[in-house]
Amino acid sequence: MPIIHSVPLTAAAFAPFGEVIEVPPAADDGNRRFDDLARLETDADGAPMVSLLRLGKAVTLPLALAKLERHPLGSQAFLPFGALRFLVIVADGDDAPDLGSLRAFVTDGAQGINYRPGIWHAPMSPLAPGVLTVIDRKGPGDNCEFFALDDVTIA
Amino acid sequence: MPIIHSVPLTAAAFAPFGEVIEVPPAADDGNRRFDDLARLETDADGAPMVSLLRLGKAVTLPLALAKLERHPLGSQAFLPFGALRFLVIVADGDDAPDLGSLRAFVTDGAQGINYRPGIWHAPMSPLAPGVLTVIDRKGPGDNCEFFALDDVTIA
Repeated sequence: MPIIHSVPLTAAAFAPFGEVIEVPPAADDGNRRFDDLARLETDADGAPMVSLLRLGKAVTLPLALAKLERHPLGSQAFLPFGALRFLVIVADGDDAPDLGSLRAFVTDGAQGINYRPGIWHAPMSPLAPGVLTVIDRKGPGDNCEFFALDDVTIA
Repeated sequence: MPIIHSVPLTAAAFAPFGEVIEVPPAADDGNRRFDDLARLETDADGAPMVSLLRLGKAVTLPLALAKLERHPLGSQAFLPFGALRFLVIVADGDDAPDLGSLRAFVTDGAQGINYRPGIWHAPMSPLAPGVLTVIDRKGPGDNCEFFALDDVTIA
């Protein structure tokens, strides 16, 4: 009856199996993005997807472990999904935003959002300090366009 | 000077811009997965990536909004990254896990992990009820293999 003693997770110890997705300690109160923290891999017939896993029951230690699993065709990432409220400010419009259509949403702290390609939106505007997971594109080319605003207030 | 009044985010109101990523209210304390909640789109030269965004300063309302942005080459998803500790139980091995190599890690609540394709691991084992973001493969084919264990205890 082997007993495996669990230990704190570190990137170095976990490296043979994949990546730990975390931010280093903050040096100041600025905003900073940490890019491409996991290798998202699938076979050619597959593609990455984003899902949520609701866990209604916790495990307790010691835990009798009945099975292992693996996914040969793709990587699998798990990220804690937590409490952070932020503003979602969007507008219609193609070459330029239609400012008459500007609207602002507030998340409830347990919502994420996904902007379609090309949707005009405000830079990330959190209602508290915190950390967000970002899932977007890597690759060549210019993928960020800006449009300056004059005298627009969100209330 | 237009003033935009922010309103609670709902999937219906946000539909023209993308998807709200959230779970419905729980009907019981079971575990349940909600798949493929966002359309991850990029051009052919790009690929999705997972990043973390550390936000050191909150905004306050009313907010003077100075610019909008957009990303023509790919979608962009933001998910709150929160506090949930879970076990990360892994083993070496190819066709079958090498049980002598079994090890168990505990996350600190602010860590996510990514398993490489084919890595043997335990079913998700949270240390509290909660919600996790999952980023893995969608597509045809059998992408889940199991290996039964006898008398293994994680402590």
